[in-house]
Amino acid sequence: MTWFRSLLTASSSSIRSSIKPRTINPSPKSIFTSYSHFCSEPSSSRDKTQSPYTSNYSGLEPTKSNEKPRVVVLGTGWAACRLMKGINTDIYDVVCVSPRNHMVFTPLLASTCVGTLEFRSVAEPIGRIQPAISKAPGSYFFLASCKGIDADNHLIHCETVTDELETLHPWNFKVSYDKLVIASGAEASTFGIHGVKDHAIFLREVAHAQEIRRKLLLNLMLSDVPGITEEEKSRLLHCVVIGGGPTGVEFSGELSDFIIKDVHERYAHVKDYIHVTLIEANEILSSFDVRLRQYATKQLTKSGVRLVRGTVKDVQPQKIILNDGTEVPYGLLVWSTGVGPSSFVRSLQFPKSPGGRVGVDEWLRVPSVQDVFSIGDCSGFLESTGKPVLPALAQVAERQGKYLAALLNQVGKNGGGRANSARDMELGAPFVYKHLGSMATVGRYKALVDLRQSKEGKGLSLTGFVSWFIWRSAYLTRVVSWRNRFYVAVNWATTFVFGRDISRI
Amino acid sequence: MTWFRSLLTASSSSIRSSIKPRTINPSPKSIFTSYSHFCSEPSSSRDKTQSPYTSNYSGLEPTKSNEKPRVVVLGTGWAACRLMKGINTDIYDVVCVSPRNHMVFTPLLASTCVGTLEFRSVAEPIGRIQPAISKAPGSYFFLASCKGIDADNHLIHCETVTDELETLHPWNFKVSYDKLVIASGAEASTFGIHGVKDHAIFLREVAHAQEIRRKLLLNLMLSDVPGITEEEKSRLLHCVVIGGGPTGVEFSGELSDFIIKDVHERYAHVKDYIHVTLIEANEILSSFDVRLRQYATKQLTKSGVRLVRGTVKDVQPQKIILNDGTEVPYGLLVWSTGVGPSSFVRSLQFPKSPGGRVGVDEWLRVPSVQDVFSIGDCSGFLESTGKPVLPALAQVAERQGKYLAALLNQVGKNGGGRANSARDMELGAPFVYKHLGSMATVGRYKALVDLRQSKEGKGLSLTGFVSWFIWRSAYLTRVVSWRNRFYVAVNWATTFVFGRDISRI
Repeated sequence: MTWFRSLLTASSSSIRSSIKPRTINPSPKSIFTSYSHFCSEPSSSRDKTQSPYTSNYSGLEPTKSNEKPRVVVLGTGWAACRLMKGINTDIYDVVCVSPRNHMVFTPLLASTCVGTLEFRSVAEPIGRIQPAISKAPGSYFFLASCKGIDADNHLIHCETVTDELETLHPWNFKVSYDKLVIASGAEASTFGIHGVKDHAIFLREVAHAQEIRRKLLLNLMLSDVPGITEEEKSRLLHCVVIGGGPTGVEFSGELSDFIIKDVHERYAHVKDYIHVTLIEANEILSSFDVRLRQYATKQLTKSGVRLVRGTVKDVQPQKIILNDGTEVPYGLLVWSTGVGPSSFVRSLQFPKSPGGRVGVDEWLRVPSVQDVFSIGDCSGFLESTGKPVLPALAQVAERQGKYLAALLNQVGKNGGGRANSARDMELGAPFVYKHLGSMATVGRYKALVDLRQSKEGKGLSLTGFVSWFIWRSAYLTRVVSWRNRFYVAVNWATTFVFGRDISRI
Repeated sequence: MTWFRSLLTASSSSIRSSIKPRTINPSPKSIFTSYSHFCSEPSSSRDKTQSPYTSNYSGLEPTKSNEKPRVVVLGTGWAACRLMKGINTDIYDVVCVSPRNHMVFTPLLASTCVGTLEFRSVAEPIGRIQPAISKAPGSYFFLASCKGIDADNHLIHCETVTDELETLHPWNFKVSYDKLVIASGAEASTFGIHGVKDHAIFLREVAHAQEIRRKLLLNLMLSDVPGITEEEKSRLLHCVVIGGGPTGVEFSGELSDFIIKDVHERYAHVKDYIHVTLIEANEILSSFDVRLRQYATKQLTKSGVRLVRGTVKDVQPQKIILNDGTEVPYGLLVWSTGVGPSSFVRSLQFPKSPGGRVGVDEWLRVPSVQDVFSIGDCSGFLESTGKPVLPALAQVAERQGKYLAALLNQVGKNGGGRANSARDMELGAPFVYKHLGSMATVGRYKALVDLRQSKEGKGLSLTGFVSWFIWRSAYLTRVVSWRNRFYVAVNWATTFVFGRDISRI
């Protein structure tokens, strides 16, 4: 607890002793005595106008020789979490900085929007992935965003996330690192189209799924209230999905499942008004085998999803305008056209890969500086490596996290854990990505599994119920904790027996 | 679908045929043809400046002789839901008007704040309680608030709830009734204390529990970030509960359970800073047997809850001021000092019971007008009945809902279902309340069960694990649907095995 110790002064240690939680006394008088430290000034002479935060710009100091070297991880996505899970905490202390205290099991996020799964089933708290973070004296999770990297001095600048609560103002602090892993992910691409950020909902966080669900249920209920025109009712119940990648396709499939099975049952008055339209500029699931694409098209169309080829020009509060001038009114607009570099990544002064990601070499190092690595959607191979930038897939991120954990453990074991101490160390085999196949579900207990190694390669392609079963099983075994595996299984079983939940909470 | 039919004109029926959901065609051209009704003006000459809502003040017309009589229910709490569950839908159409589409299983709400239970497990959608509402042609759920009752004309005025979405403006409509049941509940009492509504969180809705949970987890995480003073850390982690009734006691118990079992494990760095203080002006659980009160005091104190006798004078963003001038800084403030009449109930021109509730006679009728009833926390016996106003308990509300459903069914069966047709009808036995006992949990697998008939009466009192088991079982069998019974059991089992969930979503 280095930073902690450095904060403690003679005066504050006397405060501390007065607030031990077990000095509980139900007699009011002595309780208010124990409150006294809240109201009175501590013995040291502190400025009355001082903010509640320490006036000096504090943080985690560089590690000392009697402490473990410190790995600082930015992010809590697939890459960061797989890395933290694999880090040997006998060798390293782990400090994670992220605006989110949990990992989102993104492949199942679409299912939570319509109530097939609970939101909690797809979120995994960091402390469950790497328990040292909640317990070990030198490991921490900080709910904050990284604002800048000072690679020369081996430290990062951070600002706390405070969720717009009026009683808390964000404050800044710094964290020194021995090794830094940038795994802060990417941002949803809007291609500079006007209105997307204001009116469309992305599908990348649990909060997005919650927003989609609340809006969908609100629209379903409002469209049943007297006084609404036929036109407005059709608009409210028109769900438009932009982007025909796996996320867009899976969400459309879930939504049409929800309409066929649950809306027809539970919103019988308005069931003839609800539609799903999927708009894609090119082909849907363009990375999949042609047979699978045709199968997906057939299945989606059969379940009532309208597939439209088009490009969005403008997004307005109640309608979108396509390039050819067509106006498409909507009640719910979901945007899933892929991802691009985040503003944080764009602000970094490191060399970039093609596409503007943090450029890395074959060992996932940022080559211009010492002890900085980058993995997941925010990183890409530098052009000089001769390797292509890998797709922004959970599969890639997870593999990179696993690889880098092993590499850092090896470096640490060989005495290279400290800052600047692995300069000439042999790092072993470079990172090589082998694609294991792609999966997508299209609703109605049907899915696609593409086991080809690459877009041009040959290999197994599966469709239908068997592949849906594989899809569910594969996901179930990859959900990180046993608790969530159990919950997801229970959610699926309950939905199967009782239908989806429609309470709007 | 009376109101619906009245909305359909020659022009709009042509619109309707063009948007049948099964006229799906994947070819872009024909899809855009099917969009045409969105963009073009329908054949009838409509004013271009017209709002999306029908310009005439529309709604559900009085029922016709070939339709069932209509029971309009205001609210979706215990009373309203029990009533709707019991209404014979062969006799009546049911129309429910409420700003919430689900019932909240309030006795378990405290458990959701700390992750023992999922939010969804304590919410029951209306459509699952009374399926006719989602399916029957003349039964509806309207997501709206009642703004006024015109008892002379047997109709109510409503306004839709739109959740502050910019794309939707609330609109007004009216609903004619044959029978009206006011079951819109009560509001949390603030006793006019400044700052309560702005800074404290009540514990009456799922949204409140979500807010408490998010704030608690945020404070736990922020207090671990470098740069925060010891004082501020103690403030952030000071959870203050105002009101020592069953809700306040149960929440304090759950919170101390969470601290002992989960915070010590998962937030080890800050565990010595978190406190729970329960402030009550009189005695805690004042309606319970003295032995049970003593037991609760002992148990709460043992689990680290500080019990303070005091009255709040002022609530500020970061501290409360008690009447004796003591300042109590807090990070989380939960307000549970009981309920009082809502502004809607205060606005009604009916005679009131002592305490300002809607006054009813022994048959739960509002005696000054025809066909209006009131049940639950918003209603109370008129002074002229000579009966005391019943406490605002789920138990009372549920019993009243059950009684009134049977009464209305009987009236309907005897031909008195229509407006003004039960004027001189014999209503049978009046409503008599028999108290079945009170229960409260105090954390650590301990609870109290008070089986006395009244505060002064004699009867069985239980404490400890056996009574905790009874408490859980009693609640489990009273959760309305099998789906939620199953989920609550699964939640409890999972918490027992894996601990509480701490992802902040």
